[in-house]
Amino acid sequence: MTGNHQLPFDLKDIGGRAIAAARLGTRGANPIVGAVVVDVAGRLLAVGHHRGAGTAHAEADALNQLRADLDSGRIDALPGNGPAEWTMVVTLEPCNHSGRTGPCSHAIRDAGIGTVVYGASDTTREAAGGAAWLAAHGCRVIAGEDIDPRWAGAARAANHRWFAARASSRPFTTLHLAQTLDGRIAAADGTSQWITGPASRHHSHRVRARADAIVVGTGTVLADDPRLTARFADGTDAPRQPLRVAMGHRDVPAGAAMIGDGHFHHVRTRHPSEALAELGSLGIAHVMIEGGASIASAFLAADLVDEIWLYQAPLMLGAGRAAVVDLGIESLADAKRFEYDDVGDGAVQRCGDDVVLHLSPAPAA
Amino acid sequence: MTGNHQLPFDLKDIGGRAIAAARLGTRGANPIVGAVVVDVAGRLLAVGHHRGAGTAHAEADALNQLRADLDSGRIDALPGNGPAEWTMVVTLEPCNHSGRTGPCSHAIRDAGIGTVVYGASDTTREAAGGAAWLAAHGCRVIAGEDIDPRWAGAARAANHRWFAARASSRPFTTLHLAQTLDGRIAAADGTSQWITGPASRHHSHRVRARADAIVVGTGTVLADDPRLTARFADGTDAPRQPLRVAMGHRDVPAGAAMIGDGHFHHVRTRHPSEALAELGSLGIAHVMIEGGASIASAFLAADLVDEIWLYQAPLMLGAGRAAVVDLGIESLADAKRFEYDDVGDGAVQRCGDDVVLHLSPAPAA
Ligand SMILES: NC(=O)c1ccc[n+]([C@@H]2O[C@H](COP(=O)([O-])OP(=O)(O)OC[C@H]3O[C@@H](n4cnc5c(N)ncnc54)[C@H](OP(=O)(O)O)[C@@H]3O)[C@@H](O)[C@H]2O)c1
Ligand SMILES: NC(=O)c1ccc[n+]([C@@H]2O[C@H](COP(=O)([O-])OP(=O)(O)OC[C@H]3O[C@@H](n4cnc5c(N)ncnc54)[C@H](OP(=O)(O)O)[C@@H]3O)[C@@H](O)[C@H]2O)c1
Repeated sequence: MTGNHQLPFDLKDIGGRAIAAARLGTRGANPIVGAVVVDVAGRLLAVGHHRGAGTAHAEADALNQLRADLDSGRIDALPGNGPAEWTMVVTLEPCNHSGRTGPCSHAIRDAGIGTVVYGASDTTREAAGGAAWLAAHGCRVIAGEDIDPRWAGAARAANHRWFAARASSRPFTTLHLAQTLDGRIAAADGTSQWITGPASRHHSHRVRARADAIVVGTGTVLADDPRLTARFADGTDAPRQPLRVAMGHRDVPAGAAMIGDGHFHHVRTRHPSEALAELGSLGIAHVMIEGGASIASAFLAADLVDEIWLYQAPLMLGAGRAAVVDLGIESLADAKRFEYDDVGDGAVQRCGDDVVLHLSPAPAA
Repeated sequence: MTGNHQLPFDLKDIGGRAIAAARLGTRGANPIVGAVVVDVAGRLLAVGHHRGAGTAHAEADALNQLRADLDSGRIDALPGNGPAEWTMVVTLEPCNHSGRTGPCSHAIRDAGIGTVVYGASDTTREAAGGAAWLAAHGCRVIAGEDIDPRWAGAARAANHRWFAARASSRPFTTLHLAQTLDGRIAAADGTSQWITGPASRHHSHRVRARADAIVVGTGTVLADDPRLTARFADGTDAPRQPLRVAMGHRDVPAGAAMIGDGHFHHVRTRHPSEALAELGSLGIAHVMIEGGASIASAFLAADLVDEIWLYQAPLMLGAGRAAVVDLGIESLADAKRFEYDDVGDGAVQRCGDDVVLHLSPAPAA
């Protein structure tokens, strides 16, 4: 800590709580963000996090809690220990634009919060400038980088793939894999339904419902004719339905189930980056790649997978189609490296008879 | 419950605790067993479990606790509520033979326990007869089967593979697999060291130290020349070293590392059942199968794998040798089925950068 930035708490501790709160969110169109409000004595007043696109930002989540606690008298704003003396620690620079929710910069000023400490700078064109706006409107704004570069680095690292996707103006991508213990998605004779159990399929429908688009290869369309709707456990459709996307050169049959009500798109390319660019131009911010093996492998080989949900059924086949087929890798030293990722439901969870693993690409060393 | 067998507690509850205690043990040469002692008022006095070959049986573990608690005054044996009024609930019929520890039947009689309720009958030739011996020596002995067949069934099911191995007079087997997310054990160019990290390798050395023998195929011997000793994390040898076994027709080179000090054996067969019979005749009760892919697949195909420790590294290769190569399975309906098994360290655990999955074959439906 530097003398210029006296804070009534240890940023490593309080900032760590903000990152832990961020990790309760889910990955997708939006970054994961956590926000903590601390009073003049260093006491924790509120902890908020962002729950995904379309829901309150972490700052708003924390401020909503504060407001409710002030209204109910659970928290007192006393002279010398009111909002002006309070500090909000947030893992990402507060946004300065009106998306599906209002700008957090304004919400923080309106709440009268005296000090804001943020972790990662917001480098996206639309939302940047929150720190400058707050400073211009009477808030003391501190870049975590100036006090605790390790904490700021960790706050940034928590969204390293989200930043990478933004930097190349492409949607964030989630890969879905459902396989046996020996990494197969179909038996020798082609049978593949169902490898995973109902609990896993229900989990993946919840992931579907978060995405803006679901992509499958023409091979899966022709082999399985899937519906690709996001459904509740009882089989009814979720209110929010992603765009259903077929990828590849071949035509999709006019009667294909995934065309359904027409919320359908065909990207006639085999290049993952072209497919993402085309979907991005349609306003898609989060793409879920459902397979099959060729499509999954193409996105993996191009390093265009930002997170993986891997459903592992307790089966062995010993033969049949592999989940991942060709990444152009010759030697173990060149293997694609991931990290078990506890964001969301956790890195590893039992799900019915299956296990669900959540992974993110390992940051470059 | 039948009127003939009044017990001062609910066997579903107390018996369930005994099974839960059993599951704290480890699989291997011995079955998993749990034992609970309850007083006349149905209060839990002690909970014991067996920690693996060479350690106290569950009954002795519970009685040791009782003795310590009686000596220290933490438990009072009062008239009308002393050992004669107490009940021991044990998941497996108490043994009646002196192995590495004395017979449990005698220990229970010596402790003066009035009633014993057991789950599964001991069907092994050497140890059977504990219930009859206790009944002949003044103990009230109740087969759980007569009171709560579901509980007795669950107690038996907890060791279904151990019973199966005993029934065919073969050693219990543990399969070790260390693979990438896409089920490979080597890259396209054959590089395979190391797929998993040090924490996983250390975990598998602890499993090695529990086994009586470690088997590898001649392919692995010739490709990797492994030492196959059980080592601590610091690299020093564990006190107990399993027999190192090569399996296959080809000769093992005279200078092979696994021959080491000569605690080595070569089974010149490709038939898993013949290999197990030969090892059984050497007094081996627990065999760990370390690979490679051909050997692992042969034991899996023959349904001679009783538990699996699967170390899953967060890597993808997309090509290279698969961990499991041929099980003779054509269709998904014929897939080998397993269950995630929480016995021991748990069904699913993070281990350094890897995940370790523990599985047992699913009982026939
Ligand atoms: N378990 C699971 O998670 C899961 C999920 C989905 C599917 N599956 C299974 O996967 C199997 C289908 O796998 P698949 O590999 O045959 O089908 P796929 O990946 O769905 O589609 C392959 C086709 O996609 C087109 N394509 C587009 N971009 C490509 C690229 N970069 N590289 C290669 N092809 C590209 C090609 O067709 P064009 O000639 O049209 O370009 C190609 O033939 C089915 O058995 C299905 O059941 C399993
Ligand atoms: N990641 C891991 O967990 C792990 C562990 C061990 C090994 N590995 C890797 O596995 C690779 C070796 O695999 P592998 O399959 O070539 O070697 P392997 O399974 O160790 O040995 C295969 C050889 O074993 C003999 N054999 C005995 N019984 C057999 C049976 N029922 N079916 C087939 N063969 C039988 C055959 O040789 P004969 O002609 O002599 O009978 C066969 O060529 C190496 O790359 C090694 O690094 C990985």
